[in-house]
Amino acid sequence: MDSDGTRPKCPRGLLTNDYYDNIETFISAAYETGHDFLATPIVHPKYGDRVNGYKGKQLQEWRARPVYDRDDLILKKAQSQEVTLGLLSKWLKLDSKDADLRVNSEIALRQEIQWACHLGLFAVATPCLPSKGSVANLARVLNHAVSAMSVTQLFVHVKVADVKDLESNRAWKQWNKLRNLTEHNPKIGIILELTFHLPKNEMLLDMWLAEPVKAIIIPAEIFVSNPKGYPVLKKSHQAFVKKLMEKTAPYIALTIPPTQIHPMAVPNSYCEYINFLNNHLSKMDPVEQFAFGYQDFLQNPLQPLMDNLDNSMYATFESDPIKYQEYENAVYHALLDRVKDGSDYESVVMVVGAGRGPLVNCCLRAADRADRKIHVYAVEKNPNAFVTLQNAKAETWHDQVTLVFADMRKWKPERQCDILVSELLGSFGDNELSPECLDGAQKFLKPDGISIPCAYTAYVSPMASSKLYNEVASYKDLTHFETPYVVMFQKTCELAPSKPVWTFEHPNPQVDGEPTDNLHNVRFASVDFQAGPQDMIMHGIAGYFEAQLYKNVMISIHPQTHSPGMFSWFPIFFPIRTPLQVPAHSNVSIQFWRATDEKKVWYEWSASVENDEGDVTADTPIHNVGGRSYWVGL
Amino acid sequence: MDSDGTRPKCPRGLLTNDYYDNIETFISAAYETGHDFLATPIVHPKYGDRVNGYKGKQLQEWRARPVYDRDDLILKKAQSQEVTLGLLSKWLKLDSKDADLRVNSEIALRQEIQWACHLGLFAVATPCLPSKGSVANLARVLNHAVSAMSVTQLFVHVKVADVKDLESNRAWKQWNKLRNLTEHNPKIGIILELTFHLPKNEMLLDMWLAEPVKAIIIPAEIFVSNPKGYPVLKKSHQAFVKKLMEKTAPYIALTIPPTQIHPMAVPNSYCEYINFLNNHLSKMDPVEQFAFGYQDFLQNPLQPLMDNLDNSMYATFESDPIKYQEYENAVYHALLDRVKDGSDYESVVMVVGAGRGPLVNCCLRAADRADRKIHVYAVEKNPNAFVTLQNAKAETWHDQVTLVFADMRKWKPERQCDILVSELLGSFGDNELSPECLDGAQKFLKPDGISIPCAYTAYVSPMASSKLYNEVASYKDLTHFETPYVVMFQKTCELAPSKPVWTFEHPNPQVDGEPTDNLHNVRFASVDFQAGPQDMIMHGIAGYFEAQLYKNVMISIHPQTHSPGMFSWFPIFFPIRTPLQVPAHSNVSIQFWRATDEKKVWYEWSASVENDEGDVTADTPIHNVGGRSYWVGL
Repeated sequence: MDSDGTRPKCPRGLLTNDYYDNIETFISAAYETGHDFLATPIVHPKYGDRVNGYKGKQLQEWRARPVYDRDDLILKKAQSQEVTLGLLSKWLKLDSKDADLRVNSEIALRQEIQWACHLGLFAVATPCLPSKGSVANLARVLNHAVSAMSVTQLFVHVKVADVKDLESNRAWKQWNKLRNLTEHNPKIGIILELTFHLPKNEMLLDMWLAEPVKAIIIPAEIFVSNPKGYPVLKKSHQAFVKKLMEKTAPYIALTIPPTQIHPMAVPNSYCEYINFLNNHLSKMDPVEQFAFGYQDFLQNPLQPLMDNLDNSMYATFESDPIKYQEYENAVYHALLDRVKDGSDYESVVMVVGAGRGPLVNCCLRAADRADRKIHVYAVEKNPNAFVTLQNAKAETWHDQVTLVFADMRKWKPERQCDILVSELLGSFGDNELSPECLDGAQKFLKPDGISIPCAYTAYVSPMASSKLYNEVASYKDLTHFETPYVVMFQKTCELAPSKPVWTFEHPNPQVDGEPTDNLHNVRFASVDFQAGPQDMIMHGIAGYFEAQLYKNVMISIHPQTHSPGMFSWFPIFFPIRTPLQVPAHSNVSIQFWRATDEKKVWYEWSASVENDEGDVTADTPIHNVGGRSYWVGL
Repeated sequence: MDSDGTRPKCPRGLLTNDYYDNIETFISAAYETGHDFLATPIVHPKYGDRVNGYKGKQLQEWRARPVYDRDDLILKKAQSQEVTLGLLSKWLKLDSKDADLRVNSEIALRQEIQWACHLGLFAVATPCLPSKGSVANLARVLNHAVSAMSVTQLFVHVKVADVKDLESNRAWKQWNKLRNLTEHNPKIGIILELTFHLPKNEMLLDMWLAEPVKAIIIPAEIFVSNPKGYPVLKKSHQAFVKKLMEKTAPYIALTIPPTQIHPMAVPNSYCEYINFLNNHLSKMDPVEQFAFGYQDFLQNPLQPLMDNLDNSMYATFESDPIKYQEYENAVYHALLDRVKDGSDYESVVMVVGAGRGPLVNCCLRAADRADRKIHVYAVEKNPNAFVTLQNAKAETWHDQVTLVFADMRKWKPERQCDILVSELLGSFGDNELSPECLDGAQKFLKPDGISIPCAYTAYVSPMASSKLYNEVASYKDLTHFETPYVVMFQKTCELAPSKPVWTFEHPNPQVDGEPTDNLHNVRFASVDFQAGPQDMIMHGIAGYFEAQLYKNVMISIHPQTHSPGMFSWFPIFFPIRTPLQVPAHSNVSIQFWRATDEKKVWYEWSASVENDEGDVTADTPIHNVGGRSYWVGL
C-alpha cells in the first residue's frame, strides 16, 4: 500500500477482434499508444471454416489428430506472451444442437487452449456467452480444460447486461448457470464487457462485484464525447468502472474504433482516459488503509477469554481513532448524569478487561472533562498486559487507579462501582462472550449503576461472494464451512439490508447473584429477507453489531450506521455449505441460534429460500450442530 | 425369504394417548388383544403443567437440574421396554415464540428422551408436527438428541395429509423442512398417521414411499364397518397401507376406540384386520424374489470388459426366464426373414461374448424352430468360461459350433456372418461398453447382416429416495456421490415418468473398418421433466434401458415397458451430491454426457430445477468431471 491511501492501478490493454496478418504491427501500435497488454484472436477464422467443411474420412482424421498449419495462426510464436490475452475463436459453439459442430468445437477449443498454454499467454477468453439457452456443455469442457492450465488464466466473456432487456439479469443468470455447473471452479474468471446502456437497477451492477471479474472490456463505441470532443465515459459507466477498479482492480481492455467517432480522439485517447481514472480513484479511507491486503481474507475470530492477546494486537486495537473517543463520551455523559455539578462525590469506575489501559485513560479524560472525581479499578487477567498497567500506574495514574489481577468472573471486590466499563465485544457483538463476562462482573455494580456498553445487537444479512465461498471451500472440509470468519469484505454483495437477530442488555435483571446456568444467554431468531427483482446467489451470511455505550452514544459496524473511521472490527462471515439460488422476489429466511453448555458457547445457523407460494426452493442443513466445528470456550 | 415369495409381516401395536395410572393393565390388555408392541406417553401431563408454572428461582433450579418425581412418570421402570414406543409429551413446543416455553420444552424433551433411552424403549415418537410454521428449533434439538441415542429409535410424528387441505402436501413439506435441516439424519425416522380422508392425487401418497417411514398409526376412527359390522379399511386406505407394508414393513400402531364405533368390533378386531392384511399381501414376483435382501442395496456396475465374470454370476444371469426366450425369438424371426422357406442356405451366426453358451443354445433352438440351417461361431475372451464352452461343444454342439477364444475387438475372422448376436448390455444400455465392443465386431458382419440387438436406448428420470441418498452419503466422500450404482429400487419415488436420453444402433454406418477414435460414441442430452402439483425432493437419477433385439422383439427394464419377470438387470442409480428441492410445477432439467478418451468411457451428469419464469431455483454442479470418480475401462 502507498502510505497515502492510493489504490493500485489497473492495467490497460488494446483489444482487436479483427485478425491481424501481421501481429507485430498490432503489438507495436498497442505499445505506442500506451497500453500495458494486448487482446487478440489466436487462430484465423479460416481454420474453422476449413474444419467445419470436413466430411467422412477427412473429418475423422482431423478429429483424431487436429493440427494447425502455420498460416492458420495469428499468434504463430511466443512473443509478448506475458501481456497477451488470447481470444478463442468465435465459431466455437459448444452447446450447438448440431452434434458435429458441437464435437468439432470441443476439439478445436481444446486445441486453441493448448496452443495458448504452450505459448504462455497470460489468459484466454471464451466467445461471449449466449444470452439464453444451454451453457452446460461449455461448462463441462471448460471444467476439464482448466485442470491442465497453470500459467494461463481462463476468462469467460460475459456482457454486463442483455441489451434487449436491460432490466433482466439474464446475462448474470447465464454466467451463474455455468459457474454452478463448474462448482465455482476458482480457475474460471470473468471478462466483463460493458454495454452502451447499463441497467438502472443498481443491484444488477453491484452483483458483479461479488463475482470473479478479472478483466473488463470497454469498447470505444461506449465512450461519449465531452464538450471538447474527447472520449469520456458517461456518469453511470464511470461510476461502475471506478467501483470495479477500486474493488477488483481488473485488466481493462479497450478498442480503437475503425473510424473516428469522437472528434478529437487520437489512438491513445481511450487509454489516456482510463489512465485518468486510475489517477482519480477515491483514496482509501482509514478502515480500508488499515485493512489493505486483508480484504476478503478469512481470519478466525479471537477467543480473548481463552487466549491472551499479544502486545501488537493491543497496539493495533488501541490505535483506533474512534472507539476510545466514543467510550470517553459515554463515560463523560454518564458522569454528568450521575453526579451533580460541583459535587465532591468520588464515583467508582471499574474497567473490566483493562488490557494495556486505554479505557482507563478514557475514564480519566472523561472525568477531567466533566469535572467529576473518580477512582478507577482496572481488572485484567492477562499477566503480560498487567505489567504494562503497572508501568502506567507507577508513571502516570498513581493513586487514582487500583490494579486488580483477576478474571472478572471470579473476582470478589470489596466495594461496588457506579460505572462498569468493558470492551468485550466481537464482530457479532456477543461472540467474544461479553454477555457471560458481564453476568459475572455485574455483581460489582451498584443496583443503580451503569454498564458501558448497556446494550448490543447482532445483525445479519444474506450475502453473495464467490471469492469468500471459494476461500472456505478450498479447505475441502466440513469444519471450515461451519466456522465464522472475521473478514474485511471486498468482493461481496448483500442481497438485502441487514436485520437485527438479538440484543443483550446490561445489567441484566434476570441475573441475580451467581447465575446457576447460562440459559438466559441462549438466543434463537428467524429473520426474513425479501430479495429484489433480480435472480441472485447466496454464499453465506454477513454478521455485524451495533452497541449502545450510553444513551445515544453508539458504536456500530453495521453498514447502515457504521461509525465512520472506526476500524477495530471487521464484519463476521458465516459460510453456508452449498450456495443457494435466490430467484427474483424470493424470501430468504435465516435461522440463528446462540447455544451454550457448561463449557462453551456456539452458534448454529441455517437458511432457506422460499417462493411466492411459500414453497421452499432451496435450503441448507443446520450448520455447526452442537458446536461440532466451532465454539468459544467459557 | 420364504421360498414361496411370502413377504415379511408387520408388527402390530396398541397405542394410547391417554396416560395410564396403571400401565400394567394396559400392557396386559395389549397382549391379550394380540398386539406385538405398545405405544404410550412416557410422562404424565401434570409434569408439564408444573414446570410451566415455575417462575424465578424455582424455574432456574429446575432448568439447572431437571428431575422427575416418581409420580410424574407413566413408564416408571424398565418393563416390556423392547416392545414399547414412548410418546413424547404433547406440551413440548420447540418452536414457540414464547422463549420460556421454548427453552422449557427443549430441556423437557431432552429429559424425556434420556429417560426413554435409560429404560431402553425401542423408540420414541415426537408430538405431531404442526401443519405450518417453523420446525427449525425442533430440528436442531432432535439433531443433537439423536447423536446420543443408540438402541432407542426416534420417530417424528407426521400426518399423511393436512385434513383441512388434502390436496396440498403441507404435511410432507413440514417433514421435508425438518429433514433438510437435520441433513437427512439417518437416525430420524417417521411415524406416519393416517387420516380419515386421503388425498386423491396418488403421488401425494407415493411420495411417502421414498421417506424413512418406520411406523404408521391407524386410529380406530379411520376404520369403516363392513356389511357384517366389522371394522375394515376403505379401499383407498387399504391400498396405501398394503403398499407401505410391502415396501417398508412398518410398525403399525392401532387404537381401541373409547366407545363402540363399529357394531361388531371387539377389542382385538382392529389388530385382527391388520393380521388379515399381513396374510394377504401380494406375493413377490420373480424379480422381487430374486432381489429379496438386495432392495435399495448399492452395487457397483459390472465391468465385464476389464474383469472376467465368475461362474456363479454366469449361472445367475442364465437363470433369467425371459431374456433368453426373447433372444431366441429375435434369432428365430431374423432367420425366417433372411432365409426362404425350404432353402438349404446355412446362415453364419456369430455369438460375441458367448460366456458359458446360453446364447449359442438360443440360436440353435431358434434355428430348429424356424427349420433353418446355421453354423454358430462362439467368441469368448474369458478363459474360464471357455472351458465350459469346450465341454458343451464336445458333449452337445459338435460341428455345428466353432469356438473362438478371442477378444471380439481384436479377432480377425476368415468369413463374415449373417447374424451377430451379443448380450453386452448393462442397466443403462451402453454402460458395459456394448457400443465399443460391437464397433469392433461389426466387421464380422456381412454388409446386409443383422445385429441382435439392433438398437438400445438409455432412459432417465428424477427420483426421490432418502434411503438411497443416505446410503451414498454414508461413505462421506465425493467418489461415492459420483458413481452410479445398480440397485433394486424399493423405497423410491419417481418424480416424473422416465424419458430417453440417447440411442445406439448396430450396425453403425458411421463406423467403417477400424474406427480411429471413439467420438461417434460420445453423447450429450438434456432432458426436461415437468413436476406435478406437489412439492417434492430429488435425490438422484434413475436409469434404465430398452433394447430392440430384432424388429418388434424387445427387452426392457424401463418401468413403462418392463419385460415381465425378467430379472437380469436392476435399474441404475446416479446420485446427486445435494438433494434438490422441487417445488410444485417446476421444471427439472437433467444433463447427461457419455464421454470417452483412449482408455475409458464415463458419464457426467448434472441437474437443475427451474420455476415458471425459467429462473433456476436449485442446481447441482457437473458430477464426475473427466471421469474422476467413475469410469469404465476400454
